[in-house]
Amino acid sequence: MSITEISKNAKAASILMAPLSGDVKNTALAAIADALKANSAKIIAENELDLADTKKDNTATPLVKRLKFDQSKIADVCAGIESLINLEEPVGKTLEARELDKGLELYKVSCPIGVIGVIFESRPDALVQISTLCLKSGNGVLLKGGSEAKRTNRVLANIISEAAVKAGLPQGWLGLLETRDDVAAMLKLNKYIDLIVPRGSNEFVQHIMKNTTIPVMGHADGICHVYVDSEADADMAVNITVDSKTQYCAVCNALETLLVHSDIAQTFLPKVKDALQAKGVEIYGCEKTAAIIDVKAATEEDWKTEYLDLTLSIKVVGSIDEAIDHINKYGSGHTDCIVTNDTAKAAKFMDLVDSGDVFFNCSTRFSDGFRYGLGAEVGVSTNKIHARGPVGLEGLLIYKWRMIGGGHIVSDYAGADAKAFTHTELNKEYKL
Amino acid sequence: MSITEISKNAKAASILMAPLSGDVKNTALAAIADALKANSAKIIAENELDLADTKKDNTATPLVKRLKFDQSKIADVCAGIESLINLEEPVGKTLEARELDKGLELYKVSCPIGVIGVIFESRPDALVQISTLCLKSGNGVLLKGGSEAKRTNRVLANIISEAAVKAGLPQGWLGLLETRDDVAAMLKLNKYIDLIVPRGSNEFVQHIMKNTTIPVMGHADGICHVYVDSEADADMAVNITVDSKTQYCAVCNALETLLVHSDIAQTFLPKVKDALQAKGVEIYGCEKTAAIIDVKAATEEDWKTEYLDLTLSIKVVGSIDEAIDHINKYGSGHTDCIVTNDTAKAAKFMDLVDSGDVFFNCSTRFSDGFRYGLGAEVGVSTNKIHARGPVGLEGLLIYKWRMIGGGHIVSDYAGADAKAFTHTELNKEYKL
Repeated sequence: MSITEISKNAKAASILMAPLSGDVKNTALAAIADALKANSAKIIAENELDLADTKKDNTATPLVKRLKFDQSKIADVCAGIESLINLEEPVGKTLEARELDKGLELYKVSCPIGVIGVIFESRPDALVQISTLCLKSGNGVLLKGGSEAKRTNRVLANIISEAAVKAGLPQGWLGLLETRDDVAAMLKLNKYIDLIVPRGSNEFVQHIMKNTTIPVMGHADGICHVYVDSEADADMAVNITVDSKTQYCAVCNALETLLVHSDIAQTFLPKVKDALQAKGVEIYGCEKTAAIIDVKAATEEDWKTEYLDLTLSIKVVGSIDEAIDHINKYGSGHTDCIVTNDTAKAAKFMDLVDSGDVFFNCSTRFSDGFRYGLGAEVGVSTNKIHARGPVGLEGLLIYKWRMIGGGHIVSDYAGADAKAFTHTELNKEYKL
Repeated sequence: MSITEISKNAKAASILMAPLSGDVKNTALAAIADALKANSAKIIAENELDLADTKKDNTATPLVKRLKFDQSKIADVCAGIESLINLEEPVGKTLEARELDKGLELYKVSCPIGVIGVIFESRPDALVQISTLCLKSGNGVLLKGGSEAKRTNRVLANIISEAAVKAGLPQGWLGLLETRDDVAAMLKLNKYIDLIVPRGSNEFVQHIMKNTTIPVMGHADGICHVYVDSEADADMAVNITVDSKTQYCAVCNALETLLVHSDIAQTFLPKVKDALQAKGVEIYGCEKTAAIIDVKAATEEDWKTEYLDLTLSIKVVGSIDEAIDHINKYGSGHTDCIVTNDTAKAAKFMDLVDSGDVFFNCSTRFSDGFRYGLGAEVGVSTNKIHARGPVGLEGLLIYKWRMIGGGHIVSDYAGADAKAFTHTELNKEYKL
């Protein structure tokens, strides 16, 4: 089938998915978990073929690690599906209800977006998470995973799609894309696809944005900062810095640039340097940093770099305002933290830093859908519309305005004898 | 000043606008209304120069009518500002509050988007409405109006910008663009501009989308439908059809295609034809329509056309499903209505029609921010993310995740002795 046909089918399916009850969707989710368990031998066999190929190609070890999909990964994704089933039904919630006039009632009701195209990395568990999130939110989904995982993705997509259709989902709700050409074709289909979610580097997200008129929810760079204020508890600041940088450095919510107030730099920098070096972190510092501790010289480029590695840049700043300006200039609007004992300064920092996630005295690594209690996440948005930061089910929903009248016409509310609108808020749910 | 500098200044101003209190913003809005009244002679004089130019150019009468900005229009926009002042403060609302663990609290708090670029038609009142909506929602704004209104726009933008700055808004919060080149330059400035709102034809919105990576909230075509079901009250259906088509035909929420169930066509079509022709409506019909009433032949092109005029296409359909399929295929996702006495059919129609506004027994012309009780509107979105249908203040807002800790680090929640998250909903507002 061509990508156009796959997308057209997904669109047609999405229309039928919108009114599905929570029961039907939850039964389908349970059927998917059962089918994944029942077919685990087959899944693991296909995954081993993918793994064998990457080993032949001498692919880097971290990729191989992410690609591996064994019994324990299957158990993990099934547990994820279980918790998704337990989340409240997100579709059909009445968000506003208003009487415009007697017998003329307006309801703003949550509904699925339609068809979501997701381009994700080489983790097969991402395919399971994303497709089940889309199912729960009533959206059709087009999935393009890493080519290294192609056999695993194929078998997973078949199992998930078929189990759901048997449980009452419309045929075609899930489509699998396999090549870069497929992605290029998808980007042109704004008639059938309502939102693209690309997960990857800033360049990749920018590339997608430049090549489509479909709205894009970018999951781009995380150039995250910790600002250690003059009023910071130095030990707490060391802990937060080390955790933000080293707890898992290959991810978007890891720390990349540490900003230190000049009043505390003399005592704080040697402490944090020891702690970071004990974890193997390489440090690039500004001139003022280099005057206090022994570091490599940072250049302008360092402030713009997402290292995704055990590397950190450090800059000494003269004031909280300089820190805020630096973050708004060089940051990526992801997650930024202030460490201070001065609540007024924290309030200022959180008001003026223009990022999706602004933290006070805690690690940037908390910026994550599971930790936030969103249940699951489809990605972390660095956009400034629709959804920001970790995106769970809610980011896959929009709303419809539903109006119920009794023959009401606008002529009666215009001109000399115009009737007035009552505009009374109604305390009830949409129901027909 | 270059467009880059204007945009950079608006971005810097937007950072300072985000934490402004409702009092400061409302004082600024009142000052704007006062300044518009105090300068009305000057505004009217500039507007008369614009009007004189268009008369020289033999510009079409409707445009001249929209361009005219007299004492009564000034009173109207000032009344609009008054009602904006009375709306609840939209920024800083706590949307979610959750304890992740003892002393680690997460808040989702509403905030402005940043800088909004709005491209609008020749109505100078639009400039006042859009700039004051952006002010109330804490956003910087770049405005490009119709070139016919350039003197009026210039004097209005100066008055509004200065009155607000005197009342405490940061310099540069409002920028005026004047040429198409300015727009082309703006579309490249994704570093400083967070959202583009183009108001105009579908082609124009598509052109904007193709030429920018900035998110676009399109206010595009309204190909609206009324479906007259077999169970409809024929008199009500005639009333709703006539109002939807003729109450004001040059707007996006006016009816363009009437769908009629074949079971009612024989009796309904002659009635609706008489009523429409009394209002001067020209009708194009499908073959089945033409077999019942005397109409011009509709072609495939008619189903895709937004006439914006006293012209209507009519199609006879065999079932509600055919009506829904027609709307989802040819509609623009704007506003569509079913007329029926069968509530189950209405429910089905409203569930399956994939439009921002779905109506039951009332005129499509109700699809409007003022009638909905949103206070004011920046446009009508035909997008499927962020905001849909009439967009008021809420569509100019997004949220920030704000987390308050006491030195919490992620290492403590990982590995063998991992602490568990409490994930308890908090019943309190964000406050620092």
